[in-house]
Amino acid sequence: MLEKTTRINMLYDFYHLLLTDKQKSYMELYYREDYSLGEIASGSNVSRQAVYDTIKRTEQLLETYEEKLQLYAKFGKRKELLSILEKESKQNHYPASVLKIIEKLQRID
Amino acid sequence: MLEKTTRINMLYDFYHLLLTDKQKSYMELYYREDYSLGEIASGSNVSRQAVYDTIKRTEQLLETYEEKLQLYAKFGKRKELLSILEKESKQNHYPASVLKIIEKLQRID
Repeated sequence: MLEKTTRINMLYDFYHLLLTDKQKSYMELYYREDYSLGEIASGSNVSRQAVYDTIKRTEQLLETYEEKLQLYAKFGKRKELLSILEKESKQNHYPASVLKIIEKLQRID
Repeated sequence: MLEKTTRINMLYDFYHLLLTDKQKSYMELYYREDYSLGEIASGSNVSRQAVYDTIKRTEQLLETYEEKLQLYAKFGKRKELLSILEKESKQNHYPASVLKIIEKLQRID
């Protein structure tokens, strides 16, 4: 059984535009819509094994993109730093303009 | 003649890990080391046209990655916001801890 992890969902968010339509379709049915491998297979007229293989290979591809581009890792680091900055700004009553910039930075990813 | 732009150099920084060895090699010789197409061709035992085609296709590929992932565009937005934040922090004498976080954020990309 495949592990349905938050990590794969996050990697999918960052890299799905680099995937093929078939890869995207299977990943969305499996991870977002919670379809079983068998359901995806019968809906697509392919074997359960073929769906499983595509999903496994796509997961590996997402990990390869992450190894190379580190978008998820950088996102995590930024998020942590921005949340410290946000807290500090609120505690010390920095002007609203500062909080606004922090919020804009938080929205970029 | 190809345009040797800052944009291609920046896109190359962001996406070169997604390129093949040949693509990286030609791009580096051409854009970083300032070799001519003819020099790269004779060093690689291929035609000048083949080098030109590979470089052109690689440039298009970099633009496709940017269309999809927007790393360069987001980098620019973050850089601008962080520099406003940095200026404001210095002008208003925010604690050193704030500047330290801003610097860490600037180093992530």
